[in-house]
Amino acid sequence: MNIKTTLTEDSIPENYYNIAADLKEPLSPVLHPGTKDPVGPDDLSPMFPMELIGQEVSQDRYITIPDEIRDIYRLYRPTPLYRARSLEKALDTPAKIYYKYEGVSPTGSHKPNTAIAQAYYNKREGIEKLTTETGAGQWGCSLAFACAKFGIDLDVFMVKVSYNQKPYRRAMMEAYGANCIASPSKYSEVGREILAKTPDSTGSLGIAISEAVEKCVTDSNTKYALGSVLNHVLTHQTIIGQEAMEQLASIEEYPDTIVGCTGGGSNFAGIAFPFLGKSLRNDESIELRAIEPSACPSLTKGKFAYDFGDTGGMTPLVKMHTLGSNFIPSGFHAGGLRYHGMAPIVSHLVNNGYVNPESYTQLDVFKAGLLFAKNEGIIPAPEANHAVKGAIEAALRAKESGENKTILFNLCGHGNFDMQAYTDYFEGKLFDQEYSDEEIGMALSGLPSV
Amino acid sequence: MNIKTTLTEDSIPENYYNIAADLKEPLSPVLHPGTKDPVGPDDLSPMFPMELIGQEVSQDRYITIPDEIRDIYRLYRPTPLYRARSLEKALDTPAKIYYKYEGVSPTGSHKPNTAIAQAYYNKREGIEKLTTETGAGQWGCSLAFACAKFGIDLDVFMVKVSYNQKPYRRAMMEAYGANCIASPSKYSEVGREILAKTPDSTGSLGIAISEAVEKCVTDSNTKYALGSVLNHVLTHQTIIGQEAMEQLASIEEYPDTIVGCTGGGSNFAGIAFPFLGKSLRNDESIELRAIEPSACPSLTKGKFAYDFGDTGGMTPLVKMHTLGSNFIPSGFHAGGLRYHGMAPIVSHLVNNGYVNPESYTQLDVFKAGLLFAKNEGIIPAPEANHAVKGAIEAALRAKESGENKTILFNLCGHGNFDMQAYTDYFEGKLFDQEYSDEEIGMALSGLPSV
Repeated sequence: MNIKTTLTEDSIPENYYNIAADLKEPLSPVLHPGTKDPVGPDDLSPMFPMELIGQEVSQDRYITIPDEIRDIYRLYRPTPLYRARSLEKALDTPAKIYYKYEGVSPTGSHKPNTAIAQAYYNKREGIEKLTTETGAGQWGCSLAFACAKFGIDLDVFMVKVSYNQKPYRRAMMEAYGANCIASPSKYSEVGREILAKTPDSTGSLGIAISEAVEKCVTDSNTKYALGSVLNHVLTHQTIIGQEAMEQLASIEEYPDTIVGCTGGGSNFAGIAFPFLGKSLRNDESIELRAIEPSACPSLTKGKFAYDFGDTGGMTPLVKMHTLGSNFIPSGFHAGGLRYHGMAPIVSHLVNNGYVNPESYTQLDVFKAGLLFAKNEGIIPAPEANHAVKGAIEAALRAKESGENKTILFNLCGHGNFDMQAYTDYFEGKLFDQEYSDEEIGMALSGLPSV
Repeated sequence: MNIKTTLTEDSIPENYYNIAADLKEPLSPVLHPGTKDPVGPDDLSPMFPMELIGQEVSQDRYITIPDEIRDIYRLYRPTPLYRARSLEKALDTPAKIYYKYEGVSPTGSHKPNTAIAQAYYNKREGIEKLTTETGAGQWGCSLAFACAKFGIDLDVFMVKVSYNQKPYRRAMMEAYGANCIASPSKYSEVGREILAKTPDSTGSLGIAISEAVEKCVTDSNTKYALGSVLNHVLTHQTIIGQEAMEQLASIEEYPDTIVGCTGGGSNFAGIAFPFLGKSLRNDESIELRAIEPSACPSLTKGKFAYDFGDTGGMTPLVKMHTLGSNFIPSGFHAGGLRYHGMAPIVSHLVNNGYVNPESYTQLDVFKAGLLFAKNEGIIPAPEANHAVKGAIEAALRAKESGENKTILFNLCGHGNFDMQAYTDYFEGKLFDQEYSDEEIGMALSGLPSV
């Protein structure tokens, strides 16, 4: 009875897959926040090394992964692909449920896939320090690990609500040698302004991004790194889907439906894009489901419009599904999904009908995660519970229709650092939050005019 | 550049290896706590199912692993074998350092290897509930996971100092459906007695065992499960060493030195016994290093004598290295190594010169663990830091002597649930504790006369 499909190190992909090469309609240009003209490399070079700026706008289908990066990937890649046989049985579904498990990385999520790449390219261009933000802490820990491997200093601005909910994440960043700061903080102009207005601010990813961007510009020989949203980040994550495709091929399977959770969009892109690219090239169709929390419903209730990536309006303007850069979601537990915007490419694909978004409430996704844990052993991260919920719903639809669907989802991380959320769930302290159209409309009224 | 060696599910061992079959000198018998005569199956049957009692005294070299157990092992086995190339480089050692990583199990340590087996054998004999104790929580979580898989109820008595240090472990047990109780508790006679005398007792594994044993005898259709020490537990863990042997063989390696940390002895036995058995059968020698904390030095400072396994004197008497069953070690962070005794087989092997014990202080092992984390990515559990320290010392000895040694150690678990310990280390709150001969002598003066 086959449960998991493992590959040897030789099967770590040799290229990142860049879906820009296969899109039928071009992406909208990124605009300068001041002039509102399309940005060029010079506009981005204060924040990113040239190689990553090149990848951000590349139209090449494949980008070779340097050996130095692949050597670090060997620490945890290829990640296993599992068949969730116990869960299938518990659901009494004719569907086959496969999941790719990224929690075997040292920091417990898919985030090192891009952290290692970003640290490497910065190091190669002589950068000595990086700044970044983190929500749940998965990204901050992953970049801290990557910076330790390449000898780069790191400041991480961590959304205050998560900083307090997840002290172990802070300890992990410090174990790798990084400096972790609760955001909003006194260490940036934008942080000081927000604290002056709202001293009790629990922070948001948008604010933390503003702080990290400001710090990278003011500190010497320092660049900024982002853990999701941008094209090059999504491209790095495609090693997930490439491996999954090889693993499924080795057992003569191919998915009908692919499910991932979406905060900034990178883990979803990572599992889905290699399959979607194949479909686009061959004019075939594949069902893609992007699952988001109903408490931060950028894809299901947001607007597809130009907006800032951060709260302070320091980043370029990108066309994406957004709730408005001043939207501060409630402190629900899936911190990694608590972002007002969405990756431009994922937004573009939703807008063009290639990806179907769904939203679920916090209590429903924790219930799904616990059913998964009791059957499959792994306790998922709150973010990953959304993907679990989406996969379960897909399996139940297959049961309803009697179809032998093959479902693949990305279990992007384990919940070892998120157990307080489970304690809160057991103690009845978790609540659901949904926003009225009026509330969403209010938040959206502040969108910049372009 | 090879970093890790993976095996497919087909390579999960088909048998547990029982070293009793290869011992040159027989083990001392286990004695009844009242009569002090050797115990028989009837004496043990209130606590354990017959199959496990049989395994406890078996002289068969191999015990077939039932398919139902192997099917659950597939969730995380075979575990990867790594070569610590970055650590080797950091140490500038000619030695090759390999480590077997058991942290990929759902609960993050080697403990599910025996938890799954024990839950299965109990279920097969119709048992509906188990009781157990846990120190750091790794065993309690693992048995909770195993009981969830087989539909068995579970009460876990968790040493109070760990219960408070590691709330996430409690949450994990509850996620799997188990009941977790801080020990000493009001739920047992022995717990109530200790609380009456010392209301602030931070507990010990010895006390928690007494509580769990008492509860198993008083509740209906309930047995008891132990996570280490006993012969059958060590036997279950030998799948670790068997896999490591196959993995090393696949890259044409064989270890000169094997290192493991020892609390009750099971993870050390798991990695070492298959290799030691081969050496015993072939009259070859192999260097085995058992690493323990200097704050609980049963092998290096304890006495090889008959003692109780618990504080309440409810368990049978076993001959082992012990600090006395009333010894309550300070609340240092490697809770899984905070046990007054040691597995009888490991003790026997130390006494006969097959295994060399070493002890290190808490600060030294955390320093070693952080060096490992920065180089290899994985942040080890505090217990596993001891094995890391032992392996580093072995590698430095090889550097000193200029020998190309091959070192294998067991990285028995990750530190995701132990990050408070790292925070305490960074904040200077961790302290070293060593005991004088007089203090040890005092504790040993209470050994039962046999």
